[in-house]
Amino acid sequence: MQVEALPSAVRDVVQSHRCGGKRIGLVPTMGALHVGHVSLMDAARRDCDFVVATIFVNPLQFGPNEDFDRYPCSLEHDLQKCEAAGVDLVFTPETSQMYAADAESEVRLTGLTRKLEGRHRPGHFDGVTTVVAKLFNIAVPDLAYFGQKDYQQQLIIRQMVSDLDWGLEIVTCPIVREDDGLAMSSRNRYLSPADRERSLILFRALSRAQELAQTASETPDSIAQQLQQLISGTDGVDPDYAVVVDCETLEPLPQRPERAVALIAARVGKTRLIDNQILRFR
Amino acid sequence: MQVEALPSAVRDVVQSHRCGGKRIGLVPTMGALHVGHVSLMDAARRDCDFVVATIFVNPLQFGPNEDFDRYPCSLEHDLQKCEAAGVDLVFTPETSQMYAADAESEVRLTGLTRKLEGRHRPGHFDGVTTVVAKLFNIAVPDLAYFGQKDYQQQLIIRQMVSDLDWGLEIVTCPIVREDDGLAMSSRNRYLSPADRERSLILFRALSRAQELAQTASETPDSIAQQLQQLISGTDGVDPDYAVVVDCETLEPLPQRPERAVALIAARVGKTRLIDNQILRFR
Repeated sequence: MQVEALPSAVRDVVQSHRCGGKRIGLVPTMGALHVGHVSLMDAARRDCDFVVATIFVNPLQFGPNEDFDRYPCSLEHDLQKCEAAGVDLVFTPETSQMYAADAESEVRLTGLTRKLEGRHRPGHFDGVTTVVAKLFNIAVPDLAYFGQKDYQQQLIIRQMVSDLDWGLEIVTCPIVREDDGLAMSSRNRYLSPADRERSLILFRALSRAQELAQTASETPDSIAQQLQQLISGTDGVDPDYAVVVDCETLEPLPQRPERAVALIAARVGKTRLIDNQILRFR
Repeated sequence: MQVEALPSAVRDVVQSHRCGGKRIGLVPTMGALHVGHVSLMDAARRDCDFVVATIFVNPLQFGPNEDFDRYPCSLEHDLQKCEAAGVDLVFTPETSQMYAADAESEVRLTGLTRKLEGRHRPGHFDGVTTVVAKLFNIAVPDLAYFGQKDYQQQLIIRQMVSDLDWGLEIVTCPIVREDDGLAMSSRNRYLSPADRERSLILFRALSRAQELAQTASETPDSIAQQLQQLISGTDGVDPDYAVVVDCETLEPLPQRPERAVALIAARVGKTRLIDNQILRFR
């Protein structure tokens, strides 16, 4: 496994493999790798001939009061996981390498990014789309892998790729959960034992939402209300939002659709967690 | 010479040539081709093994009160010029192909784009950077050619490429002028004979600015003042700006530098013209 810190080195290596007829897979991460990330690498390994993972904690996607400074960082450990997952090349740039002092360009979406997460984390998605655009231009993949856990993010990246014509395909991989249902997240390690217990309400509420979607009398709205009640009713858990919306547009659904997505963001203690589930209506 | 309207067709053709070891040159145009455009194609032909020209009048870079609807269009004529210049592939997309109804992504620069042209044509450069980003992603060139005539534009494109890591080089080609000095522009054809005569003040003023730069007592500011006077003093010519600024940042220069750029935008009759010249100070 090769490890490179320079964009130009990554570009050259990948270019030679692409022109050798290899399919290039890209797995962008912020490190602090867990089984969820590894599942993205596994998928890339299955589909592609050459797998690039990136480890970069992108300051641009953190708000001023967010956890950039304490975001977990474990490079040695992460590299071992990449190696074990069969990654061919890991890109580990320095921040100064990614953002020149005079940088002033951003990739910005004006619709999808303004909803839900975007409302609660202003500027967050502008940071995401900008860094992902850079990674696409550096690694020039055929496929790029994102987790369904960040549901809105993968929608936004898909829209960006379509709008701006990158010649690549986005693959969204299923949420990976702990045995008790908590969605894998690098931020789970912040949870105290009591908060860890409380956090289970997110998965339980989503599972309940799926049950409700099977009931003919329930609408997206009525399910969303029950989601909100379940979460608000849990001591120490404070929801930012809990909605049931269109899978593509994230807009409200006036009637019972075939499917919808239930999206939750909540603070559990000091830790902000997100989770989601595609609901199938009967 | 191949002509393609579909992004996917362009991407596939170029990809096969790139992987065959060919250097790809891109010349983005809005059509209405003149000798200035042909000089870009000539430069690309000299440097590259496979030359792609694009002809697309980009609605996104026109303001609501600008000349999008009457922008000259002459596809047959343009294709002949491309063929004569030795272009290998011309990309002629439809607007609906370039901008899906639900497109919402833009590439935006927050500094350079807000000055001079950007102040007088709000949103113009956001349209330029967005379409050029798309063209870079579709044609994936090694080199891309822009004219110095649009001085601020080529600076912005260079900044964008550097900030967002496209693996390509921007080549800026010299301004091509009519025999009497008027910079070639697709918009020159709007000029009435009287306005055509008046428009010569732009080149004359820039030439005078270069003379002044050779005079030890003149500063960028004093030269700019004389530029403004020369242009304002011409009946029927109404300057938007006439400045002498740093070649890279477009910021004012407090002292005599080694070089600077003089930039002019002016309305001549109903037609808005721009021109510029690099000034060398002695």
